[in-house]
Amino acid sequence: MLPAMTLETTPKPYEHDAPNEVFATPQTLVEVPASRERTAAEEARTLAAGSAHAALATISEEGDPWASMVAYAMLPNGDPVLCVSTLAEHGRNLLRESRASLMVAQPEVAGDPLANGRVTLAGVAERVEGDAEQQAREAYVAKIPAAGMYAGFGDFSIYVLKVQRVRWVGGYGRMDSADADSYRAAEPDPVAPRAATTVRDLNERAEELQAIAAQLGGHPDVTTARCTGIDRYGLFLDVETPRGRGPARVGFAEPVASADALSAAIAELTLRAQSS
Amino acid sequence: MLPAMTLETTPKPYEHDAPNEVFATPQTLVEVPASRERTAAEEARTLAAGSAHAALATISEEGDPWASMVAYAMLPNGDPVLCVSTLAEHGRNLLRESRASLMVAQPEVAGDPLANGRVTLAGVAERVEGDAEQQAREAYVAKIPAAGMYAGFGDFSIYVLKVQRVRWVGGYGRMDSADADSYRAAEPDPVAPRAATTVRDLNERAEELQAIAAQLGGHPDVTTARCTGIDRYGLFLDVETPRGRGPARVGFAEPVASADALSAAIAELTLRAQSS
Repeated sequence: MLPAMTLETTPKPYEHDAPNEVFATPQTLVEVPASRERTAAEEARTLAAGSAHAALATISEEGDPWASMVAYAMLPNGDPVLCVSTLAEHGRNLLRESRASLMVAQPEVAGDPLANGRVTLAGVAERVEGDAEQQAREAYVAKIPAAGMYAGFGDFSIYVLKVQRVRWVGGYGRMDSADADSYRAAEPDPVAPRAATTVRDLNERAEELQAIAAQLGGHPDVTTARCTGIDRYGLFLDVETPRGRGPARVGFAEPVASADALSAAIAELTLRAQSS
Repeated sequence: MLPAMTLETTPKPYEHDAPNEVFATPQTLVEVPASRERTAAEEARTLAAGSAHAALATISEEGDPWASMVAYAMLPNGDPVLCVSTLAEHGRNLLRESRASLMVAQPEVAGDPLANGRVTLAGVAERVEGDAEQQAREAYVAKIPAAGMYAGFGDFSIYVLKVQRVRWVGGYGRMDSADADSYRAAEPDPVAPRAATTVRDLNERAEELQAIAAQLGGHPDVTTARCTGIDRYGLFLDVETPRGRGPARVGFAEPVASADALSAAIAELTLRAQSS
């Protein structure tokens, strides 16, 4: 039985000092199983794996915080590899002071970048030697096409940022921290490289999305559903109902193990929604 | 009279510790008037005016450098306006320690971001009051669409980053500093907002570009010319000749005063090249 249709308000996310009405969204009318979401550590590993350029913060000679742009590659354990020149201010900074942080933002964002994900990886940037230097250099040259031009220059050195602390921001009001252990243990989301194109494809299949939102998302009165995000655990939807408009989440039957398995997981949702 | 055609090498840009041959490019065969280029201060003002999102470096409670993402607007004097929440780590950092820097990268870059422009504006982030707060808030709200949602929240404060030092990097081997006075005195390039589309348009007019490179760029033997950049002072070209391939510069008759005047300045170059 459906409860009376009322415009309810969700709790304020975190503690923004703002009127509650800003966050008014329709509640689910049917109980849906809680869907797993990526942890902050998984979000961080996914963002870090998804880019090759980021902002580096170092400490200048005068003790000032210094923001600059760098290319980076990732080691399998989640530590970023940098290749910096002493001709660059950040390169001279790291020679004096190894503390650094790297901010990686979601690439190819349409619209407001602050509504999208970014992560700060903070730690100590160390020059590595021997096998570790070799491994780091190979990861860097494999990831950064232009590295062939400069990675061998005498003024460039390979650094590994040993991550000690992680802060993820997923958009307005979505943020969380991760410690180094959970960051290292987490996996980058394997479906992330295909998420954007899959979202676009799905949004051309309006009836499927509406069925998924109605049958599996807890909004049987949905009039329009749009997909706003996909990860290995499920879909994020934006649903319109006579009770208002807001976000919904629909989980996959099980976590998707690879990008190639994403279509089958979505097909399973569609089948389940249509046969409900 | 043309000098003998030889493959010459230009001096190494800056002091990269690299073999000279990396930078081999064809020299001009005909003397061309030196073309004014944007100063580091102008490059910095242009980059700062051309974006609304940047990386902020602050100092954390533990004294570590902290990189994060912010939206910003510009005051007419070149100081960036920030609107930060104490829910964000950078907001808490600025409450304790006002030293900060902002790294703005060229937006909408195709290809290698490190081959394109970015600037670090370093200084002190101050909470402003009275008329100054009003002016800064208006600039921010006018520039950042989402600000209407959060700029009035109680946990957000308006800061102005009083710029004290500027470091511009234009790409590989192009970099320079600017002091606060020259930064403040410089103008953002008025043609920058139209540069990318004009470059694309020009590159569909191959014969015009070839005539410009041959007659005004000092490469009479040019076989192909491609435009790689436009600013108020002229065009950057990539020219192919039997002597090799490299960059060329062709200045406008006079600095272009507005984006609307850009087409006329290019038409003047074409006319001059075709009547040479």
